[in-house]
Parts: sequence; structure tokens; C-alpha cells
Amino acid sequence: MTPDAVPPGGSPYDPALMAAVTDLGDALRSLVDASVRTTVDPAELSAVAARARELTGRLTSATRPATRLPALDDPVAFRRVYSPVTGVGSAIAPPVVLRREGDGVAGTATLGLAYEGPPGFLHGGMSGLLMDQVLGAAAIAAGRWGMTVRLELDYRRPVPLEQPLVLRGWMVEDAGRKAVVAGSIALSAAPEEVLVEARGVFVAPRPDTQATYFGGITDATGRHRPPGRPTDATALGAGAGG
Amino acid sequence: MTPDAVPPGGSPYDPALMAAVTDLGDALRSLVDASVRTTVDPAELSAVAARARELTGRLTSATRPATRLPALDDPVAFRRVYSPVTGVGSAIAPPVVLRREGDGVAGTATLGLAYEGPPGFLHGGMSGLLMDQVLGAAAIAAGRWGMTVRLELDYRRPVPLEQPLVLRGWMVEDAGRKAVVAGSIALSAAPEEVLVEARGVFVAPRPDTQATYFGGITDATGRHRPPGRPTDATALGAGAGG
Repeated sequence: MTPDAVPPGGSPYDPALMAAVTDLGDALRSLVDASVRTTVDPAELSAVAARARELTGRLTSATRPATRLPALDDPVAFRRVYSPVTGVGSAIAPPVVLRREGDGVAGTATLGLAYEGPPGFLHGGMSGLLMDQVLGAAAIAAGRWGMTVRLELDYRRPVPLEQPLVLRGWMVEDAGRKAVVAGSIALSAAPEEVLVEARGVFVAPRPDTQATYFGGITDATGRHRPPGRPTDATALGAGAGG
Repeated sequence: MTPDAVPPGGSPYDPALMAAVTDLGDALRSLVDASVRTTVDPAELSAVAARARELTGRLTSATRPATRLPALDDPVAFRRVYSPVTGVGSAIAPPVVLRREGDGVAGTATLGLAYEGPPGFLHGGMSGLLMDQVLGAAAIAAGRWGMTVRLELDYRRPVPLEQPLVLRGWMVEDAGRKAVVAGSIALSAAPEEVLVEARGVFVAPRPDTQATYFGGITDATGRHRPPGRPTDATALGAGAGG
């Protein structure tokens, strides 16, 4: 789907399932957008709600438990099809498409009315959601995976809706288990004029914490599959106590 | 819908429309949740996608322009039915229900699998999205409205999915156009054990900036309706240059 996504690779997956998940994500995203723009009357809104509940019934005829990752996911390759920021199957995600760029990552997204905060502009918290993902991806691109321990955002100017944005992230400091990352949001049409600046600190959990957090997580076949880099076992051992 | 919402009041609205918008928001939220849990086969996913596109077609038979607020919204009372955090009609919003509590605001929400970051836990950026809204509401509850100029988040422990959360926000410093606000996320079952701490700075735009940002915004009747407190004209005049 995104051959230049960050990080590339991962385990093989069913291309027919990927296409269908992408199709449904796209369809639901359009439905969510329509739901905030529509001016049809209350009876029609309720009729559409009833139809939507029928679709929910069809989808819930077979479901996974929360601890079992989706069949398409590869947590070690950070392929997460339902990510609320980058997931092709997520109706919540714009979705942001990320690629490697120089020493960091860059991505594009256009945010519609469903993401509005002050009238006409992106919700300030949505900028935080986007930046957390982009900064985390920049750490991964530099060979570090971690969970957010701090995130700071400075809002220089409001971010317009319905205009293509460019999102950037780059490593500032690589300190073993800890990565300090920075990033920005700008209009694609004026990429040098930063609208939002971000700085984040990501830390890889120690092995015992990792086991506590993700001990029950399995892939679709039932095999234990926690997140983390393929080399994390070594990196974590070296960094324990840091 | 939320008689104790923050801030209370606002202009009268059509209760039948509010009920229908709430109904559709609820139905779409369930559909989005089902879409990330389902394990039905690709053909069924695509069939559901096709049906969802039919619903989008029904909703887009009549739409508002982006500069025209929804009929149910009251930007001065901060009633925003499609807010991506608190909007009863938003499929993106959990939604968070806020109320006044002491000198600040408190709210509850339960975040499902659609908001996942690390397996089993809330996406770190979602904590930022929630906190931005709660901190902004705390400023409003204290009589100040502003746009986010800075947001800081410290993540003490990961936030579990599918468990009721309590979100709090309170004013730290009221400096005219500028409000410094703090907040937290905890489990409802352990409200004193803070998982995420937040601090935000919100600033009310000066009148000329306000006019630039929101000059084209109208309500459903076509009347100019920028956001801000009823008393902002005076407050802004006194605070200009600050």
C-alpha cells in the first residue's frame, strides 16, 4: 500500500485483505466527513443511523479479542493498519502517509472539517496527535523505538483545514533507550513557514516493563508479538538501568 | 443533551435535530469500533464499504459550506456538536462529557481499540488531543477563551484502553488574554494515580487577528458568528498589546 512507508518491510500479508481493509477505511472516512457536513433532515439522519447499525452488525459477526493484533499488523515492522493517525483501515486517521526523508521522516495529510477546533482551523489537540506519531516514526527511522514520555508543542499560527500539510520529524538526540525528537507542521504550499513546532522524548521500556505492558499481546496466529525493534532485546539489555 | 456541560447555556436549538445528530454520531462510532475489531473476509469488508458509500451519498445530498457552522452549534456558548473530542455527532470523538468541578472541569471517557497506540494502550497523541480540549474548557469555565499557543504533556504511565478515564483541567494563572491551565488523565478506578499530566497556554486573539481568522464564519442563518466569550469585545480591548 505504501511501499515507501517508514519503516519499510515487515512480514508478508494477504494483499486481498489489505485491499479490502483499505477500501473500508476509505469508505468510512468519507462517511464520517459527510456526517459533519450534511444538512439533511432529522428523519433522514436517523434512517442513515439505522443502516449504519446494520453494517456494524455485519462486521461484528466475527471479531478479534483486544489482545490479538489484526492479521495485517506487524508490530516489529510497525505496520499498524488501524493506527488512528496512519492506519489505512482507520476512519479516525486522515490517514498520514509517512516516508523517509534525509535523516528523518516526512509525511503529508489533508485534514477535513471532522478535525475542526476553532472554526476553519485544525483542533489544537489534533496537531498533538499528528506530531506524536511523526516524532515516534522519526525515532523508529533512526533505529529507536520508544513510548512517549514527554511531548511539547508550540503553536505559531493556526493550521488551516482542507489544505495539504507537510509533517516532518527528525532525531535530535539518540541516548540509547531514550530518543529526543523534533518535528513541525506546515502547509505544503509554504513548507518553510512552520505553523506548529514539536519536541518529544521517547523511551523504550526495560524488559520487565515491556513484559508487564505487552505480555498478553499476540499476533493473529496466537504467537506472542510485542512491539519493538528486531534488535531491541540486545539494545534493552545494554540500556537496562539507564 | 448534556445539561451540565461546560459552559452551560447557549442559544435554543431544534431538539429533534439534536437527537438525530446524536443518534447518527453514536451509530457511526459503533461502526468505526466494529471496523477495527472485525475479522470478516475481504468480500464482506468490501460489501460493507459499498453500503457505507451509499450512506455517504444520502448524507451529501445536502451539505453546508465549510465556513457555515452547523445549525446546532453556538460558538459563543462553545456548543460544537462535531468537535472531534466532545461532539455528540462526531464519530472521531469518544466523546468526552465535561462538567464543572470545583474551580475547573472534569470529564469522563472510555477509549476503545480504535484509539490504540502501543498494543493495549491509548495512542500517546490521543492523550494530547483529549488534554487540549479539557484544558481549553477549563479556561472557558474560568471566563477565558483562547487558542492553544503551547501544550506540554508528561506521560507517567501508559493509559489503558476500554477502561473509564477521568480527565481534569484547572486554571493555574489568569493573565487577561492569556490563560495557563493544567490537567491530568487517570483511571476512574484510581483517580489519584495520574497517568498523564498536561499544561497548556491559551491566548485570546487580538481583535484584528480574530477578524482575520474568523471573518468569514457564519451561523446556519448566515449571520457572522466568530468564537469567543460574550464579553470578549471588552476584554480584548483592555488586553490589546498584552
